[in-house]
Amino acid sequence: MLYQLPDSDIERFIQEDMPYGDLTTLLLGIGALQGKINFTSREQTTLCCTEEAARVLERCGASVDFLLQSGTTVDAGVTILSASGSASSLHAGWKVALNLLEYASGIATRTHKIVNKVKKVNPAITIVTTRKSFPGTKKIAIKAIMAGGALPHRLGLSESVLVFKQHTAFCGGLERFLQTVTEMKSKATEQKIIVEAESAEEALAIAAAGVDVVQLDKLQPEALSLLVQQLHKESPGVKISAAGGINAENASAYAETGVDMLVLSAVYFGKPSDIAVSITSLQP
Amino acid sequence: MLYQLPDSDIERFIQEDMPYGDLTTLLLGIGALQGKINFTSREQTTLCCTEEAARVLERCGASVDFLLQSGTTVDAGVTILSASGSASSLHAGWKVALNLLEYASGIATRTHKIVNKVKKVNPAITIVTTRKSFPGTKKIAIKAIMAGGALPHRLGLSESVLVFKQHTAFCGGLERFLQTVTEMKSKATEQKIIVEAESAEEALAIAAAGVDVVQLDKLQPEALSLLVQQLHKESPGVKISAAGGINAENASAYAETGVDMLVLSAVYFGKPSDIAVSITSLQP
Amino acid sequence: MLYQLPDSDIERFIQEDMPYGDLTTLLLGIGALQGKINFTSREQTTLCCTEEAARVLERCGASVDFLLQSGTTVDAGVTILSASGSASSLHAGWKVALNLLEYASGIATRTHKIVNKVKKVNPAITIVTTRKSFPGTKKIAIKAIMAGGALPHRLGLSESVLVFKQHTAFCGGLERFLQTVTEMKSKATEQKIIVEAESAEEALAIAAAGVDVVQLDKLQPEALSLLVQQLHKESPGVKISAAGGINAENASAYAETGVDMLVLSAVYFGKPSDIAVSITSLQP
Amino acid sequence: MLYQLPDSDIERFIQEDMPYGDLTTLLLGIGALQGKINFTSREQTTLCCTEEAARVLERCGASVDFLLQSGTTVDAGVTILSASGSASSLHAGWKVALNLLEYASGIATRTHKIVNKVKKVNPAITIVTTRKSFPGTKKIAIKAIMAGGALPHRLGLSESVLVFKQHTAFCGGLERFLQTVTEMKSKATEQKIIVEAESAEEALAIAAAGVDVVQLDKLQPEALSLLVQQLHKESPGVKISAAGGINAENASAYAETGVDMLVLSAVYFGKPSDIAVSITSLQP
Amino acid sequence: MLYQLPDSDIERFIQEDMPYGDLTTLLLGIGALQGKINFTSREQTTLCCTEEAARVLERCGASVDFLLQSGTTVDAGVTILSASGSASSLHAGWKVALNLLEYASGIATRTHKIVNKVKKVNPAITIVTTRKSFPGTKKIAIKAIMAGGALPHRLGLSESVLVFKQHTAFCGGLERFLQTVTEMKSKATEQKIIVEAESAEEALAIAAAGVDVVQLDKLQPEALSLLVQQLHKESPGVKISAAGGINAENASAYAETGVDMLVLSAVYFGKPSDIAVSITSLQP
Amino acid sequence: MLYQLPDSDIERFIQEDMPYGDLTTLLLGIGALQGKINFTSREQTTLCCTEEAARVLERCGASVDFLLQSGTTVDAGVTILSASGSASSLHAGWKVALNLLEYASGIATRTHKIVNKVKKVNPAITIVTTRKSFPGTKKIAIKAIMAGGALPHRLGLSESVLVFKQHTAFCGGLERFLQTVTEMKSKATEQKIIVEAESAEEALAIAAAGVDVVQLDKLQPEALSLLVQQLHKESPGVKISAAGGINAENASAYAETGVDMLVLSAVYFGKPSDIAVSITSLQP
Repeated sequence: MLYQLPDSDIERFIQEDMPYGDLTTLLLGIGALQGKINFTSREQTTLCCTEEAARVLERCGASVDFLLQSGTTVDAGVTILSASGSASSLHAGWKVALNLLEYASGIATRTHKIVNKVKKVNPAITIVTTRKSFPGTKKIAIKAIMAGGALPHRLGLSESVLVFKQHTAFCGGLERFLQTVTEMKSKATEQKIIVEAESAEEALAIAAAGVDVVQLDKLQPEALSLLVQQLHKESPGVKISAAGGINAENASAYAETGVDMLVLSAVYFGKPSDIAVSITSLQP
Repeated sequence: MLYQLPDSDIERFIQEDMPYGDLTTLLLGIGALQGKINFTSREQTTLCCTEEAARVLERCGASVDFLLQSGTTVDAGVTILSASGSASSLHAGWKVALNLLEYASGIATRTHKIVNKVKKVNPAITIVTTRKSFPGTKKIAIKAIMAGGALPHRLGLSESVLVFKQHTAFCGGLERFLQTVTEMKSKATEQKIIVEAESAEEALAIAAAGVDVVQLDKLQPEALSLLVQQLHKESPGVKISAAGGINAENASAYAETGVDMLVLSAVYFGKPSDIAVSITSLQP
Repeated sequence: MLYQLPDSDIERFIQEDMPYGDLTTLLLGIGALQGKINFTSREQTTLCCTEEAARVLERCGASVDFLLQSGTTVDAGVTILSASGSASSLHAGWKVALNLLEYASGIATRTHKIVNKVKKVNPAITIVTTRKSFPGTKKIAIKAIMAGGALPHRLGLSESVLVFKQHTAFCGGLERFLQTVTEMKSKATEQKIIVEAESAEEALAIAAAGVDVVQLDKLQPEALSLLVQQLHKESPGVKISAAGGINAENASAYAETGVDMLVLSAVYFGKPSDIAVSITSLQP
Repeated sequence: MLYQLPDSDIERFIQEDMPYGDLTTLLLGIGALQGKINFTSREQTTLCCTEEAARVLERCGASVDFLLQSGTTVDAGVTILSASGSASSLHAGWKVALNLLEYASGIATRTHKIVNKVKKVNPAITIVTTRKSFPGTKKIAIKAIMAGGALPHRLGLSESVLVFKQHTAFCGGLERFLQTVTEMKSKATEQKIIVEAESAEEALAIAAAGVDVVQLDKLQPEALSLLVQQLHKESPGVKISAAGGINAENASAYAETGVDMLVLSAVYFGKPSDIAVSITSLQP
Repeated sequence: MLYQLPDSDIERFIQEDMPYGDLTTLLLGIGALQGKINFTSREQTTLCCTEEAARVLERCGASVDFLLQSGTTVDAGVTILSASGSASSLHAGWKVALNLLEYASGIATRTHKIVNKVKKVNPAITIVTTRKSFPGTKKIAIKAIMAGGALPHRLGLSESVLVFKQHTAFCGGLERFLQTVTEMKSKATEQKIIVEAESAEEALAIAAAGVDVVQLDKLQPEALSLLVQQLHKESPGVKISAAGGINAENASAYAETGVDMLVLSAVYFGKPSDIAVSITSLQP
Repeated sequence: MLYQLPDSDIERFIQEDMPYGDLTTLLLGIGALQGKINFTSREQTTLCCTEEAARVLERCGASVDFLLQSGTTVDAGVTILSASGSASSLHAGWKVALNLLEYASGIATRTHKIVNKVKKVNPAITIVTTRKSFPGTKKIAIKAIMAGGALPHRLGLSESVLVFKQHTAFCGGLERFLQTVTEMKSKATEQKIIVEAESAEEALAIAAAGVDVVQLDKLQPEALSLLVQQLHKESPGVKISAAGGINAENASAYAETGVDMLVLSAVYFGKPSDIAVSITSLQP
C-alpha cells in the first residue's frame, strides 16, 4: 500500500514522450486495431510503479487486465502487468510505462537486495536513503526505495536537522557548535538532531554533546567497528549511522560494524530493471 | 551554446528539496552570515547543467562568481562553479545544484567517453541516444548527451518514424508492411523512415524495400560486420544503425562493423559525476 | 484515432471561461433542472476535437450521449455531439465545448478542402503545415491539420533541420554553408536536411550540394514549374517543397508544378466552423 | 499601459516551439556568433504583444534594443522591435516572438479598423468583444482587442449576467423569466442584467421588464434601426447592443442603427499581421 | 448547484499534506485494512466543499458513501460525509478533507448567519463580499460565500469598475474625476460604475455625477442613515453600498440604514467550523 | 532569513486578482502617471511576507524603495514597505501585496504574542503549529509561524510519525499497538515517535512503552499539571506535548503545566493585521 504518484506526473511523463501523438502508428493506419500488451520480468525484480505504469496505459486509452503491486518481488518470467486496447493506445503507452517500470524497479531491486543482504548480518539495522535522487524524480525514487524495504533518511531540508561541517564553519567550528546542542534540542523538540562526523575524534565529541544521532561519513568499516564500541560505551543513548560511499559491495561490511543505520545514495542510480514487453494483435 | 532549462524546472528542483526553507540553518541562526561555495571536479568530467546549477544558487539568493559552460571537459581538481552569498542562500542551493551537476555531468561524461572512443575507430560514425531516459528528466538528459557530443535518436513518438515488430504485428507481418513502405515514404516526406530488424534476413528485406535507415537490434558485432557489407552492396543508399545493449564496453566493436550510427541508452544511467563542494565562511 | 489533448488543457479551457461558476445560471436558480445539448453542423465540416468537447462537458458534470470522431467530414445538418445533464453542467460547458469544436474544426475543414483540391491535381503530393499556429495552441492545431489530412512540416526547432538565409548569414553566406552540407548530413543521420531557397539559382545550388529537401519560398507557380523540371534533371534524388503564401486559392496551381510537398500556414487561421447548438429542458 | 502576460505564458510559448533547443543552429555551430534581429511592419498595423515578444527574446538570451508599445499604430516600414545577441538566442526567439506579434497584432489591427470606421458613423458607440476567442488564448486576445480600442463584452461566465433563450428554456419561457427580472436585479446589484432577444417583439418585452441592456442577436440593420427608435421611446433607460455576425463589412451599417454597443467575435480570427524580420550577423 | 474546484486544486491540497505518502500508516503496516470514515457536524454549520472533500477521499482511494451538498445548513450531530476504503486511503484523505470542509464551511456559516440576520431587518438588501480573501484561496472563498447566500462584490480588477481616492489622486482629485463620469459610463457600457466615498459630502457629489453605485467607506450607521435618505431624495436612481469594517456584530445596524448592499470582508476569516471525524476499522 | 515563496506563487496571487489587467485604471487613462505607495502598520505587528509583497509590486512594474524583513515586530505607525512606479503598476499590485501582508502578518503576530506570553511563564517551552492551515496556503502559513517564533509540529504525513487512536483502531487497540513501539522505533530511526493520548491513563501507558513524545489531546491544564509530574517521575526521558484547543487565552495556563511543547492551530486563523496604504501621485 505505497503512495500513488499524482495525475499531473502521469500526464507529464506521457506528454514528454508523445506531445502530438504517435506519428508511426498514424502513418501505418493501424491505430484502431485491437491488441494486447504484456510486461514480463527478465530477471529477479522488486517491482515499483506498476500502478503508475497501469495509469499511463489507461490514460492512453487501454484497459488494464492485470497488475502486481509495487513492492512485490518476482523471479524472471513473471507477468507484471497486462492491458488490452487499440494499437494506438498500446503504442502510445508502451515505452512510457516500460521506462517508468524499469527505472523505478531498478531502484527498488537494488534497495531490496542490499536490505536483504544487510539484514542477514544485522537484523536490527535500518537502511535509509539520502536526498540525492535524480533532480525532479523524488516521488518515483522515494516510492521505489520504500518498495525495496528502505525508508528516506530525510526528504529534504525543511523537515529534518542534519548538521554538516559546512554549517559549523559558520558557527566558529565544531566545538563551538557543540556547546549549543542542548539549546538546539530544546528548540527542535520534534526532530532528532543528527550531526555528521568525519573522524572518530569528532564522533566522540558530537555524541558526548548529547545529539540524537551521530552520522559517520566515509569511515572504513574496520575503524568504524572500533568506534561503534567506544561510542556505545561512552554515549549509550546515541544512535550511530554510517554514510558516504556505501553500496551493494560494502554494505554488509558496514552492517557488521554494529551501526544502527546505513545511509545510502547508491540505490538511486544504476541499470534499470530489464522487463520484456510483447504486443500482440487481436485481429483475426 | 546548448539550450537552457526553463525557470519552472529550476523552481521545481528547489521546491522538491526545500519546500519550507532549511530547518538546520534556521535553528543554527547562521543564515545571515556571508560565505562562499566552490564546486570542483574530482575526476575527468564533461560538464553539464553548470548554467542551471548557477541559476539554482541565484534563485536561492547567492551571486555566481564563476562558471564553466556545459560541454566543457575538465580534469580533476578544476573549479567548475563558484558563488557567494549568505549562509542561508548557499545551504539552500548546495545539494540541489550539486545533484543537478552530478547527474547531468555523469550522462555527459559517459557520452563523451563513448563518442571519443568510437570516433577513433570510425570517425564518420554518429552516436545517437534513445528516448529511454528517466521519466520526467528528458530536458536534462538531452542537454547532457548533447554536451557529451551525441544527438537524440528521436525525441519521442510525435516527430519521427520508427517501425518495430510491435507495429508490423498489426500490419499482417513484416513482409506485408514492407509492401507499403513506398507509400509511407510519400506521406512522411520530411521524416526518415527507420525500421528495426532483428535478424540479417529481416535487415536485407527492409533495406530492399527502400527505407531510409535499417536499425539492427541486438546483433553481435561479428554478425553485424558481415551484414553491413552485404547491405552496402545490395542497398547502397540505405543507412544502417545498431541498437540494443550498446555500452562503453562494446561500443568500439560495434563501431568497427561499419554501421553509420550507434543508438544508445546506456549513457542515461550510471554513477553521477563526483564533484567536491566546499563552503567557507567569510566572517572575520 | 488521433491523439487526445491532456486533461490539464481541458481544465484550462474551462477555467479560462468559468473561474468561479456561472453567475447567470446561479441567479436564475435553474442549475439543478435536467436538459440536453446538441451540436449540429451548419455547413460541410471536417470535425476536430469532438472528443475534447465531450470531455469538457463531462468535466462540467454532463453525460455524453453521442459523438462523431475527429477526422469525420459531415454535411450540414448532422448531429456532431450530444450530451445530457443538469442545466448548470450544460451551461458551464456549452461555449467552451463549442469554441473548441469551431476553432479546431475550422482548421481541419480548411485543411481537408485544400488536401482534396490538391490531390485531384497531383495525387502524390503531400500537404504539410508550418509551426506558425496561434501561440499556445499547438496541440489543437496539429490535431486539426491531421484531422484534415495533412501532417506537420516540423513541430518546432528541436527535432528537425531547416536552414534559412537567417542561418547562412552567420556561416559566411549560402555558398560557404553549402560546402558543409555533407558534414552536416553525416552528423544529423536521422533527420532530413532541408534548406530554403529564395530563387531558382539558389535552389539549383542547394540541390546540387546534396540536401534532402530544397524548400522554395514564395516563387510563383510558373517559375516553379520550370525549376522543378530542372531540379528533377540535375538533382533527381532531391525532394522539392513549396512554401510561402500558399492558400486555398493558389494551392492547386502550386500542386501542378510537380513539387513533392506544399508547406502551408494558411489553414491555421480563418473563420471558425459554424456549428449550431440547441439546449432543451427535459422538465415536464 | 496594457497588462503584461505572466512569465509562465512566455515560457510556455518558447517551450512549445523549442523543447530541446534549436537543432539547426546547433548543427551549424553558429550559436555563439553575435547578431541583430529587427521586426518591421509590412502594412498598417496596430501593434500588440511587443512587450511579450521582447520578453521571449530576453528569455532566449538576447538584449532588447528598442520596442514600440502595444496599442501603437504604425504604417508599413516601421521598426517595431529590435534586439541583439548570440545567433542561438536570436534563432531561438525569432519565430515565437514573430508569431506572437503577428497573431496579437492581427486582432488589434482588425479591432482598431472597425473601431475607427464605426466611430466615424457614431462617435458615442462602444465596441465590445465576446468570449469566443481561440481556446487557451484569452490573455492574448483580450490584450489585443484593448490595444485596438475595444473592451471585453464579458470575460466569462463568472462575472457577468447574460440571459439567452437557452436559459429561459429552463425558466418556462421568456415571459415567465421576465417576471423575475426585478428580483434578479435586486440580487445582482453590481452587475448589469443583459438579456438577448432574437426578434423585435422579444426585445420590446425584455426592455419593458427593466433589464439594463437588451442584446439583439442577428437582426438586420434596417429592422434594427426601427427597433432602436421604438425601444428608445418605450424604454428610454435601457441600453441596446447588437450581436451576431457583425464584422468589418457590416459594422458601420450596424453603428448607424443607433445601438449603444456592437458585440463582436470577428476580430479574434483572420490573417495575422504581416511583419518582416531580418537577422544580421555582426561578425567582421 | 455551486461550481466545483478544478482537479489540479484537489491534487495540490493532497500533495501539500502528503507529498510522499503517510509514514505513520506505512510503519504501522495497517494500510490494507478496510475501514470507514464519518464527518459529523459539532455545531450549526452551513456546509461548503463537501464535494471537494469527497473528491479528496476518492483520489486517495476511498469510496464515498454519502455526502450533503454545499449550501446545506445542518444542526449539530448530522453526518455530512462518509466514505469507506483501506486504512491508507482514509488516513491519506482524512485531514485534507477535514481541513477543506472546516475552512470552507467556516466562511459559509459566517456568511449565512449574517445574511439571515440582515434579511430580517431589510429583506431587500444584498450581501456581497470583497476580493480580500486569503491569497491563493479565491476558488474556495467564493464558493463558500455563495454557499452562505452572498455574491462576490467583484472578483478582481479585470471585470469591474470601482474608483477609490487612490485613483482620483491621479486624476487631479475627486471633483475633476467626477467631470469624466459620463464619458466613463459611455465607454464601460456593460459594467456598473462604482465610486467610493469617505464622507457624506463626497457621496452626494459622486451620486450627483451619475454613477451607478456610491460605496460608503467606514461611515457609522447613524450618519449613514441620514445620508441614505438624502441620497434617495437627491439622486434617486443611484444604488448605495456600505463597506469597511462591517461584521456580524454591526451588520444589522448597517442594514437598517436602508443601503442597498453591504460589502463585507469579515466572513473570509475566523474560526473554521468544528467537524468531528470518526474512523473505524471494519476488520472482524 | 526566512525562506522565500516561489515565483509561481507570486504570479498566481497576481493572476487570481487581475487576470486581464485593471479595468478601472485603464478606463481612467491614468496608467502611465508616476506615483508612490506606502504600507504602514496600524497596530503592533510582527511582519511576514514583506519580501513577497515587494515581489508582487515588482512583477507589476514598480520599484521597491524600502522594506522591513519578515520577522520584524513593529509598533503602530511604522513604514513597512514602499515602492514607486506608474499608477498602473501600483494599482495592479496594491491589494494583492496588502492582502498577502495582512494575512501573513496576522498569523505571525498571533504566533509572536503567544510565544512571548508563554515564554514568560516557561522559558524552556516550545511552540509548534499543526498542519491545519487553510488548504493551499502552507507556504505562507509556515513562513508566518516561523516569523512569529514558532516551528512546525509536522509539515505533513510524509516526514513524521504521529499515532492517533484512528490508527490504533486498526491495530487492535492502543494496548496492542504499544507492544509494537520498540519495533517501530527501530524502523523509524530518524523520526521521533509521537503518540496521542486522550486521558492520563493512556498517557502513562504510552510513555511507559518508550515513545519519544506523548501528546495530550484536550486535557484541562489542572489535570495536565498532575499528569506531567507523574510522567516525569515514571518515564523521565519522554517529552510531553499538549494539543487541542490551545489558543491565546489558555496558552499560559498550559505552559504552566510543565509540558515541553504546545501544539497549536489557533494562530492560523483570525483577523488579518491592519495595515494602512497610501498611494500618492508624483505628478506636478
